[in-house]
Amino acid sequence: MKKKIALLGSTGSIGTQTCDVVAHQSDKFEIIALACGHDSELFREQVRTFSPKYTYTADKPDGMKLSDLATLDEVDIVVIATPGHSPLEAAINASLTGKILALANKEALVSAGELINKNCKASGSVIHPIDSEHSAIWQCLAGEEEISRIILTASGGPFRKTPKEDLKKVTPEMALKHPSWQMGPKVTIDSSTLMNKGLEVIEAYRLFGTALDQIEVLVHPQSIIHSMVEFVDGAIKAQMGLPDMRLPIQYALSYPHRLANPILKSMNLKDLTTLEFEQPDTDKFPCLDLARKAARLGSTYPTALCAADEIAVQAFLDKKIEYLDIPVLINQGLEHNKPVQSLSAEIIRNTDIETKEYVAGLIK
Amino acid sequence: MKKKIALLGSTGSIGTQTCDVVAHQSDKFEIIALACGHDSELFREQVRTFSPKYTYTADKPDGMKLSDLATLDEVDIVVIATPGHSPLEAAINASLTGKILALANKEALVSAGELINKNCKASGSVIHPIDSEHSAIWQCLAGEEEISRIILTASGGPFRKTPKEDLKKVTPEMALKHPSWQMGPKVTIDSSTLMNKGLEVIEAYRLFGTALDQIEVLVHPQSIIHSMVEFVDGAIKAQMGLPDMRLPIQYALSYPHRLANPILKSMNLKDLTTLEFEQPDTDKFPCLDLARKAARLGSTYPTALCAADEIAVQAFLDKKIEYLDIPVLINQGLEHNKPVQSLSAEIIRNTDIETKEYVAGLIK
Repeated sequence: MKKKIALLGSTGSIGTQTCDVVAHQSDKFEIIALACGHDSELFREQVRTFSPKYTYTADKPDGMKLSDLATLDEVDIVVIATPGHSPLEAAINASLTGKILALANKEALVSAGELINKNCKASGSVIHPIDSEHSAIWQCLAGEEEISRIILTASGGPFRKTPKEDLKKVTPEMALKHPSWQMGPKVTIDSSTLMNKGLEVIEAYRLFGTALDQIEVLVHPQSIIHSMVEFVDGAIKAQMGLPDMRLPIQYALSYPHRLANPILKSMNLKDLTTLEFEQPDTDKFPCLDLARKAARLGSTYPTALCAADEIAVQAFLDKKIEYLDIPVLINQGLEHNKPVQSLSAEIIRNTDIETKEYVAGLIK
Repeated sequence: MKKKIALLGSTGSIGTQTCDVVAHQSDKFEIIALACGHDSELFREQVRTFSPKYTYTADKPDGMKLSDLATLDEVDIVVIATPGHSPLEAAINASLTGKILALANKEALVSAGELINKNCKASGSVIHPIDSEHSAIWQCLAGEEEISRIILTASGGPFRKTPKEDLKKVTPEMALKHPSWQMGPKVTIDSSTLMNKGLEVIEAYRLFGTALDQIEVLVHPQSIIHSMVEFVDGAIKAQMGLPDMRLPIQYALSYPHRLANPILKSMNLKDLTTLEFEQPDTDKFPCLDLARKAARLGSTYPTALCAADEIAVQAFLDKKIEYLDIPVLINQGLEHNKPVQSLSAEIIRNTDIETKEYVAGLIK
């Protein structure tokens, strides 16, 4: 029996790579629903290739909602690769269905992780993470139970060696050069401020049920080791490999098995020469601690963190604020936020909107 | 229910560390049989500490044989930490009982691995490896099935950077300085010639059922990563940690669980700075290929390899031969050997004796 996939966000980087994986495992997987933001030649080509029963484009929604695709009875795995806040409702609803959520969207777990986890527990849904770090941790956890520490690796970004006093001169052009992975501008800026890693700390906290202080960040500029887990006996396992997102994508689909795939190359050990590690500089990169603060406060704070970051990063890209204003604005967004008694999709949506308005107001 | 342990070789390095682990996990494990080579104050102290029901010293055997301790009905785990060829019969007999064999002795798997594996398959016995590399591989295999490659790491020994032409001048004193682990002289010399790693290739071949050409050796001077496994999707898992044999010892006892233990320290990530890797120089260190040759030929060849190596290394330590004579003599021992139709403990013993006599004759 082929596993039936709904792919939300098919034309983005994770979406196209998911299509690539499925095209090479057509005896194992079948895409029966495809969704993207805008109709395009790429999307039409994907529709021709996979002949999905259901399609959806956000700009021409013809009656169906994104959430409808994520909750189709016949779907086994929902791949959520749509960026930003737009697939949040779909993710929350899918987590009520008992399906597998292959999750590439950061905001879903950061903003709505508490709620999604609650839903998963009740419905039997499980989350299969699709990013290199959380997939690495998840892979290290196979066959293991007694975790003592999660060690999230970070490339350190382009300003790892830049003195703190030079960070105020950073321009969007300088920040958009990222050493290892090809990513969109928002993620690239988040990666340079280490906010990306801060969000990943919150994701790990939601995914693996460890305490916040059991999650450490370790800078590893070569990005060969994708993350590590330490166990109660002091043993550490690391997962490593070439930087190719198709591996975590396929693992999220094939788990608990692994599949050979001609597009997934074996690492030539001759290319493995030096791996370096260093502690992150949280004084230079305060976003890491802002993320921990939001996670510690819980409730709507992680939502406010994401929202404030989104506005601040966009303002920096638009040259309305300076690089060092980003963490200042995020902190103001957090300070402005209020906790709630009980989370819901609506409260999360409102927190997102309110925080964005508040931070945008500070910029003007 | 405590697991009942027979510890063979209690006064050596692995033996004393096994006692240390058990003393700190006294609610989980109980030593009911202790064996060593020579009576000593240390042995008497161990007897006082653990009050084992059975004791044995090779120099005063009072009726029992080592093999009797390894096959006691009430024993769950036999820890075989006696060095050299002496525990071979005990290991072979224990593998017929369905017990767990926690195996620190290299010769048992190299010389008699084919036979022990056959016995294990019939009896339900399983081997839990106790050395850092095979334990690392075994840990990486937890929860995994689809292996593509085993990557055995090697410190590279003290002559990693020595030009080949200078190796002929190597003295025992020079070779006995090993960077990371404290070991006896035989193992230290084997480590300098890479024969130790060659024997470990054969052990991995016996333990994990992979093809010989799926086992690679990678030099990693820091010895922080203890070995790695690659899977069919290109993912690599590495196990790392401080160089402390008490971790693999405890894992061999506690598997499939891990136990917190105050004597097993967590690695301070501040100490993790640089990990280096390079390909082994098999031209400079021919022992690695000699071991592969013996494994490929199978039958009694691995026994002959061990036997020839033992005599050659002792002759080098006694200054009867030069450093570069070691691989020459081992190869002569292999060339002299003949395969047999069917292996038995007796044939292995005879091959060991004959090869040793033959190589000793070449030295005179």
